[in-house]
Amino acid sequence: MPTRADWIPASTAHPPLFAGVDLGGTNIKVGLVDDVGQTLAFHTEPTQVDAGPDDVCRRMGLAVHTVAGLAGVAPDTIARVGLGTPGPQDLKAGTIIKAGNLPRFDGYPVRDAVSRACGLPVSFANDATAAGYGEFWIGSAREFGSSVLLTLGTGVGGGIVIDGVPLEGAHSHGAECGHNLVDPSADARHCPCGQPGHLEAYCSATALKTRARDVLAAGATGSLARVVAGGAELTPILISREAAAGDPVALDLILDVARWLGIGIVTLMHTVDPDAVLLGGAMTFGGEGHPVGKAFIERIRAEVRSRTFPLLAERTAIRFARLGGDAGYVGAAGIARLEHQRLSRPGAP
Amino acid sequence: MPTRADWIPASTAHPPLFAGVDLGGTNIKVGLVDDVGQTLAFHTEPTQVDAGPDDVCRRMGLAVHTVAGLAGVAPDTIARVGLGTPGPQDLKAGTIIKAGNLPRFDGYPVRDAVSRACGLPVSFANDATAAGYGEFWIGSAREFGSSVLLTLGTGVGGGIVIDGVPLEGAHSHGAECGHNLVDPSADARHCPCGQPGHLEAYCSATALKTRARDVLAAGATGSLARVVAGGAELTPILISREAAAGDPVALDLILDVARWLGIGIVTLMHTVDPDAVLLGGAMTFGGEGHPVGKAFIERIRAEVRSRTFPLLAERTAIRFARLGGDAGYVGAAGIARLEHQRLSRPGAP
Repeated sequence: MPTRADWIPASTAHPPLFAGVDLGGTNIKVGLVDDVGQTLAFHTEPTQVDAGPDDVCRRMGLAVHTVAGLAGVAPDTIARVGLGTPGPQDLKAGTIIKAGNLPRFDGYPVRDAVSRACGLPVSFANDATAAGYGEFWIGSAREFGSSVLLTLGTGVGGGIVIDGVPLEGAHSHGAECGHNLVDPSADARHCPCGQPGHLEAYCSATALKTRARDVLAAGATGSLARVVAGGAELTPILISREAAAGDPVALDLILDVARWLGIGIVTLMHTVDPDAVLLGGAMTFGGEGHPVGKAFIERIRAEVRSRTFPLLAERTAIRFARLGGDAGYVGAAGIARLEHQRLSRPGAP
Repeated sequence: MPTRADWIPASTAHPPLFAGVDLGGTNIKVGLVDDVGQTLAFHTEPTQVDAGPDDVCRRMGLAVHTVAGLAGVAPDTIARVGLGTPGPQDLKAGTIIKAGNLPRFDGYPVRDAVSRACGLPVSFANDATAAGYGEFWIGSAREFGSSVLLTLGTGVGGGIVIDGVPLEGAHSHGAECGHNLVDPSADARHCPCGQPGHLEAYCSATALKTRARDVLAAGATGSLARVVAGGAELTPILISREAAAGDPVALDLILDVARWLGIGIVTLMHTVDPDAVLLGGAMTFGGEGHPVGKAFIERIRAEVRSRTFPLLAERTAIRFARLGGDAGYVGAAGIARLEHQRLSRPGAP
């Protein structure tokens, strides 16, 4: 989360300015972002989803004014707002179809409600697509022309950018890569969506916890088993800590996630053929600089190498994302910027 | 293969004109195509790959002049040539990296050799991508904004078009969907590329024949077993004929291909989210109008329906391609047309 020390002063910003709004089940994050992706001001507050969609959207609109105020600029200097929300959505209609962590938002016209609340035009995107675009624009794929981001958290999301264009899909379901089918076998694990064999059923934080519980219940021993028996809550952070401390059961659990990610990534490479595949979200185990993060991504790379063409294995970058929790609002602002550029071409409709 | 009766007279063509060249291991196909995708003339001849790449390219160049002659127009009325070849390629460099059915073409600068031979600028594409663009442009996906074509033949190829743009990939490996991983299990079947578990290992004509041989060797009985025991060659056409005649073993073999295609298509839908998924190539079992083709595509649709979101299952068209063996040259011409349009914009680089 960007602190004031990360903000650039409005006097050094590159106009035009954009606001990026990242709506999650827990928090709303809003940033004021300039034309080269620098953050001028940031605000976050609890979503308070129980207050209902009208109230949440009113507060998102206010928060756009708040970040303008924090940066010392008038709200009408914001050229456009980008809004990322969980899916599935109807992007053309501006509605959320059904998001598990946003009850009462089913079918709600969230885009237009935010637009009315802040008095500005709003571009609407899937939250993982927004994060993927943020990483593409100024993050871990900034030197590339195309990228695929997988966000590893409670679920698994995807964001695909091809030749600079975020992939929305014909039915707003582009890059729903968490639901890619990696295991068609009869004993495949089940995804929260109800289907068997989806990537999310093997590679989310939830999946890691479930698998750890199963392995411990089956009698695995070691330090992870001991601390859990002692009452510690089984979380990815705990599993990662015990893996770092040398517990082979904990490390194997993490490397199993990596193996399945490698399997899923091969198909993404053979479909999209991006310059880079990025791993983001909570489940990155400290990143490349941490021994567990390093082992995790090396295992992914090894699985990919063993299953793809040598040329692709050599040339496709597989790396961690680097914007963390900022990717969503930065990317939403970036998508607003794309739309602004498109609409401000001479002769554009 | 278009006959003279399918050709439109040059006097009714919509200029500018393009030539599409489809280089296969067996035949070269060349068509003269107008701005709305109509064929003005067509020529095919054996590739004679043993003559070497210089000779093959010289004859492809001559064939471009031949189709101009057949249509009664001067070669310099052709704005641009599109060339589709088997992959993998380096599309930017204009070379074939390595194509199994084109020995001596490894690393050969095929694009520039054809350009020199016909004296015209050449756009270079993967053959399955060209076919996918042909179906998108004037074929089975003509009413849509995006499509994925799977070509089912000796191998399995893919052609993806998103918002009217053929997907090349960052390393010329876009839509290599035959090598998507559908079976990560230890006893997965092997793809001709050497890797286990790829779509091609389950859904090509070769895979169908191999599977049929295995099933018959394991003692399956019925009419297919009888005719093969009687000396008939085991081909997809024979299997389809026996399936149509009521042999359940033959039908099961075909429906097993359909089931794996459904599995592969779900992941393509959750990645690209196209308007339509098309099935083309030799393995289409007579199409929707034939009982076996109908059973085949219905089985694909059922597998997809059981594994994707209801909204996507309902809205994503799954249908047969309809240009047959013309898709490649038509699509190559269409890709040349895209490049011509791009280059002829005012101020284009």
